[in-house]
Amino acid sequence: MTDTNAARLATLEARLKQLEDQLAIYQLLATYGPGVDSLSEDAVAGLWTEDGVYDAGGQNPFRGNAAIGDLVNQEPHQTYVGKGCAHVVSMPHVTVDGDTAVATGHSRVYLNQGDHWRVERASANRWELVRTPTGWRVKHRLNRPLDGTAAPRDVLGRGLRR
Amino acid sequence: MTDTNAARLATLEARLKQLEDQLAIYQLLATYGPGVDSLSEDAVAGLWTEDGVYDAGGQNPFRGNAAIGDLVNQEPHQTYVGKGCAHVVSMPHVTVDGDTAVATGHSRVYLNQGDHWRVERASANRWELVRTPTGWRVKHRLNRPLDGTAAPRDVLGRGLRR
Amino acid sequence: MTDTNAARLATLEARLKQLEDQLAIYQLLATYGPGVDSLSEDAVAGLWTEDGVYDAGGQNPFRGNAAIGDLVNQEPHQTYVGKGCAHVVSMPHVTVDGDTAVATGHSRVYLNQGDHWRVERASANRWELVRTPTGWRVKHRLNRPLDGTAAPRDVLGRGLRR
Repeated sequence: MTDTNAARLATLEARLKQLEDQLAIYQLLATYGPGVDSLSEDAVAGLWTEDGVYDAGGQNPFRGNAAIGDLVNQEPHQTYVGKGCAHVVSMPHVTVDGDTAVATGHSRVYLNQGDHWRVERASANRWELVRTPTGWRVKHRLNRPLDGTAAPRDVLGRGLRR
Repeated sequence: MTDTNAARLATLEARLKQLEDQLAIYQLLATYGPGVDSLSEDAVAGLWTEDGVYDAGGQNPFRGNAAIGDLVNQEPHQTYVGKGCAHVVSMPHVTVDGDTAVATGHSRVYLNQGDHWRVERASANRWELVRTPTGWRVKHRLNRPLDGTAAPRDVLGRGLRR
Repeated sequence: MTDTNAARLATLEARLKQLEDQLAIYQLLATYGPGVDSLSEDAVAGLWTEDGVYDAGGQNPFRGNAAIGDLVNQEPHQTYVGKGCAHVVSMPHVTVDGDTAVATGHSRVYLNQGDHWRVERASANRWELVRTPTGWRVKHRLNRPLDGTAAPRDVLGRGLRR
């Protein structure tokens, strides 16, 4: 193979890796909602690193992926699931920088009211991700309801800046 | 080309195919909502295999892609479209296994109420797909409203397990 | 490298480019919502070509990417952001044709009401895109609320036809 062709091969590999990263991160985020809505504790825990954090704005962030998986067994999640809920994570903006990445975007929680669903929560999310030997994992997720204050807006804006 | 380079080429082809599969399935699912909301009978029918099934929980599942396309001409769809509706399929979790695949995720139906839209339905979906000579098609779609019962939760959980 | 291998390389490059296009367009559309919700004028302006148009159905479409970025400083956007809002663009249907592309899909605006969010707008979107030296940009975005009239339905149907 000529140098030119070797270079083409190397370029292809690098370009492909970028797409794989973006799609792997999509897949990771697309697992969260189905995971919590089906009470799949292991699937949820498996999205984070062992020391991962999920800060959803409560008094104490969930620390460690065991605690994060266990949130499906806690309130208010159990009540939500009992009524019927959908946790939906939208297609995110993704920036990959070597072995770390940031995904930025919206999520909503829809809560069953009998004949319709209420939008119980519409949030800004910042997902800080790391590449591990077994694929991308969430190191830190910050989730804040878009309630008109500046903090959740800043969560979204921060992810778009280089 | 050396063996090493031939191997690199083969590896690239395999990795690329995986991404193509995931993106083709995204595209398929992203066609459904615009298809039904625009009464595009052929576009909707074309997403399924000829013998495909759409089980949305009614008394009789739609069987065959002709019947599935024809749902845009039936009730309650006609009434929904007349009021103004948006059928939104979220970014799914996708698992490809050779020539079959499963996509798992949420969908919602938003129904116009004059000055706002009501979330008329928030559902769990399992899309069973097959690779055909003309691309991926839906073999079976299971859709169940997330109403607090166990069945729709299981639809979501099942798709996340290997 | 043999002709066969050179051909494999060229085929890989072409296939990869298609995926890159689809993913770049996803990323572009996933930037809009976080951009406007965080009042990121530059990020929003940067999505369009300099002469780009955003036609959201008001009396005067926004013409030029400076005017489009400036919409974050205008009404009703300022009031929405003050209350708390989420502009969500769903995973679109994408058709690429050389250096132009069309993305078709739904968007919603969720508006905070204190203890829940109201779906203030559920729309059909047609994004006409062009490849530029610095990546894909929006040339024209058409957005129409799905209010039961034929025009917004046609926006969705048009994007699915070849």
